[in-house]
This record gives sequence, C-alpha cells and structure tokens, in this order.
Amino acid sequence: MAAPAWAGGLRGLRALLLDISGVLYDSGGAGGGQPIEGSKEAVSRIKESGLKLRFCTNETQATRGEFVKKLQLLGFDVSENEVIAPAPAACRILQERGLRPHLLVHEALVPEFDRIDKMNPNCVVIGDAAENFTYSNMNKAFQVLIGLQKPLLISLGRGRYYKETDGLKLDVGVYMKALEYACDIKAEVVGKPSRMFFLSALEDMGVEPHQALMIGDDIVNDVGGAQQCGMRALQVRTGKYRPCDEQHPEVTADGYVNNLAEAVDVILQQVN
Amino acid sequence: MAAPAWAGGLRGLRALLLDISGVLYDSGGAGGGQPIEGSKEAVSRIKESGLKLRFCTNETQATRGEFVKKLQLLGFDVSENEVIAPAPAACRILQERGLRPHLLVHEALVPEFDRIDKMNPNCVVIGDAAENFTYSNMNKAFQVLIGLQKPLLISLGRGRYYKETDGLKLDVGVYMKALEYACDIKAEVVGKPSRMFFLSALEDMGVEPHQALMIGDDIVNDVGGAQQCGMRALQVRTGKYRPCDEQHPEVTADGYVNNLAEAVDVILQQVN
Repeated sequence: MAAPAWAGGLRGLRALLLDISGVLYDSGGAGGGQPIEGSKEAVSRIKESGLKLRFCTNETQATRGEFVKKLQLLGFDVSENEVIAPAPAACRILQERGLRPHLLVHEALVPEFDRIDKMNPNCVVIGDAAENFTYSNMNKAFQVLIGLQKPLLISLGRGRYYKETDGLKLDVGVYMKALEYACDIKAEVVGKPSRMFFLSALEDMGVEPHQALMIGDDIVNDVGGAQQCGMRALQVRTGKYRPCDEQHPEVTADGYVNNLAEAVDVILQQVN
Repeated sequence: MAAPAWAGGLRGLRALLLDISGVLYDSGGAGGGQPIEGSKEAVSRIKESGLKLRFCTNETQATRGEFVKKLQLLGFDVSENEVIAPAPAACRILQERGLRPHLLVHEALVPEFDRIDKMNPNCVVIGDAAENFTYSNMNKAFQVLIGLQKPLLISLGRGRYYKETDGLKLDVGVYMKALEYACDIKAEVVGKPSRMFFLSALEDMGVEPHQALMIGDDIVNDVGGAQQCGMRALQVRTGKYRPCDEQHPEVTADGYVNNLAEAVDVILQQVN
C-alpha cells in the first residue's frame, strides 16, 4: 500500500498524543465500554517504537485514577501519569487563583476536588455531569453565578457530544453554552481545545509542537485545537466521527484514517 | 406629582400589551403564584378606560386555557381570547409547513399539540419544560435533531430566566442555546421577541405599532422586542427586573416604572 499524503514529513516525529474516548474505545454500556478493534495493539506498538506517548482526554465522568483503572481492565497499557485530564488542571488553577468552586460535575469526579475549599463559592466548575444535568442542578449553578459580582464559569472542555455504545450523548460544552447564555458571560475552558492544555502535555514529554502528532475523533477539539498549537493532527473515522467532518468549514485535518491501528501502521513505517 | 418624561406623547395611545409573569404576578409556590400589588386593579382600570388590551406571554408551562384559569383564580379579569401565547402560534406554523414535532415541553403544555401529527418527527419544538429538562430528554431531542438532514429547532421563546417565588429559574432560551450549539444550528423563535408574534397581537387589536405600548419585566424580550416592531415599551421594576437592566448595553426602555399600577396611573392621566 502506498503511503498516504499525510505520511510525508513524519520523519522528525518524536511524540504522539492520543485522545481516548472514540479512539481507544467507545464508552458506555455494561462493561464501561468496548475497545475499538486494533487499538490495544496499536498502543503497545507505539510504546515499543520508542515514540513518546501521552493520552489527552476531556473525560470528566471519573477521577483520573478510576478512569485509568477502567482502561486497564479493558486491556490497555496505560498508566495514570501518562494521562492528561482537565480536572487535575482545573484544581491547579483553582488553587493558584484562590477560587472556591460550586461543582456541577459527575459524582465520580468529586473526589478529584477533595482538597479544594468549596465553602462560600466564588465560581462554578462544570464537567460532563451526564444524569446530574437536571433542571434543579442547572438552576443551582445558575443561581451561584448570577449572585456573583463577576460570574466566573470554568468548563472542563467544550465538546458538543460524544458517542456511547447506545448512541450520541450531549457533552459538557452544551451545558456550558446554556449557562453562558443565561448569565451573558464567556466560560474559561480547561481541557481540549485550550492551548494551555495541549502545551502542558507537550511539556510533560519534553517535545516541541512540530515534533508531535495528535490523533482524535473530534474535528474541532482534538484536531483543530492541536493544530492551533502548531501540532499536526489526524482524525480517526471511529467514535463520534461523521463523514461531514471531512468538509468541516473551519478545520481540515492533516489526514483522515479509518482507525488508530491504521494510523499507527503508517506512522511506524515512516518513523522506523 | 409631575408626569415622567415618558408620559409625553402618549395622547395617540390606543392599546396596551402586557406581559404576564413578573408584571401581573410572580409565578411558583403552592397557590401557583402571588399577584403583584395593585396589578389586579390596574388591569380592571385599563379595561374601564376604553384602551384596547392584550396579554402577551411566553408562558409555556400550561395550555393557554389552563393558564388563564389560574390567572382568574388569582383574581385577574382575563379571558382566553385576550392572551397571545407561543404554543397556539407554533401549532399554526407546524400545520402550515407540514411539520411533525418531537416535543420537549412541560407535560401540561402537551394537550395544546393534540391535533398535530407527531409521528416520525422532522423537527423539535422546545418550550419551558422545567423539570422535564432532564439529561435524558435533552439527549432524545438532540438525537432527533442530529438525525435530520437539516435539523430544525422551533423554540417557544428565547428568555434566559424568570422569577418564581423561590428565586430565579432558567427559561427555555437557555436550553434552546444548548441544542443550537450541540447541532451547530439556529433555532426559529416563536413568541417574544419575535416580530411576527408582536405583530399578531397588534393585528388582533386592529392598531398600528405607534399606537401601542408594551409593559414587561424583561428588558430584551419584552422591551427590546416591542421597540423593534415600532412600539414604545416600559420596563417594570418587578418580576425578574434587576437594577443593571437600566444600563443594558443594547436596550433602553422608553420608561421605567416601579410596577404596573404606577404605569397605569400615569397612562390614564395622559390618555383621558
């Protein structure tokens, strides 16, 4: 098979950044999800190749520790210090700026904020709260915001939707937009596509943007976000991918691949 | 008392358009709400004056019939044919355009759509669903929209929030924005501040915009919407009014009054 156009210029590549949900596995269902074919082997092959690797997720339905445990149970070779996730990044920001959050997040994420002062809140942190996005909880978050002199909303991502085994589900960005409109404010986004978030992953690997390649299923948050930082980025045709993504009005991926396994095949041929 | 500046030029006035929630009464609580002081008498005085009168509401938590019954129980002299509400207007649009809605509305509003075909939906109609704005119901509406070739969302209003007796509550506009963002679309709004909606109220009274005055508690949807149609508009300092509304960056009311009773005092002095 001839190498695709995007394979050109991969020789300087030193690091890969992988999205998790929709790239490694589809979330949801009884076992917590279903690995995407070939992705477990693909992760192992990247590690054997000597390329640096981090997983860059906007997952906020569990603490990073619990999330990694789930991935390990699904058979992935992933450890906690390889995963860049929004909640730990948000905690650093809250502490640095003396912010006390009202949390609108999934119960399973709450322990991530155990050491953060939450009395008398002066901001709202919103994550992918899923079933916790009730009218009552949305009103509580709204009432905290509207009661502040200068309402501050910190959002763990700005994704529109993700794919679970039983269909597409609304993501945190949709509820972020709802509260933005209610209070006539703009949220601060922690997580993809925020520049700070990608840069912290690169710094963690000690590489420059041009030496790294992002692989994700979200054309805006994975591909567009990484490209804005000077990285190259591929979109996989798994997870929430839809054919119309390839005609997206604002973002064009450096390449489109059927799945992670196919991407890794091409990359390792070029790099080795 | 000297007449306020806005009283000048009221001599040609022939008709009043009143918002209901936050102007006549504050909704919520056990009895379904609490009349605002002086508003019952104010409505009666308008009717005695010979001015034409309609009530222009974005209320979608009940059918128009049930809503009017509640107002009558609270002591207001209001009849169903005096009330302009979004759901009957939406039904006309659905029928004219052969649209079959998936409904994301309050249970109590559903009977308003009894005669509308809802099989195999080709659009979503969203109203102030309140507790029905669950994550599951939002996902259902989203899945209908994202499955359409050209997603069509019809929103019964675009309000941000309203005041109930126990505090501010999120209104339909917030959830409209959420679905707009999820699907990357713009909703069609039926109800205030839509031009069509105000014009239908004026047509019903047989008056021109410059002969009518709107009185509401929502600076954008009541005051701004009416002004865009060429009407004058007052904001009352009741309901969801907040002092910062008087410095709104885009909308300046023709006048601000403490409540409906005060507005009617001034108006009747000028008109009679």
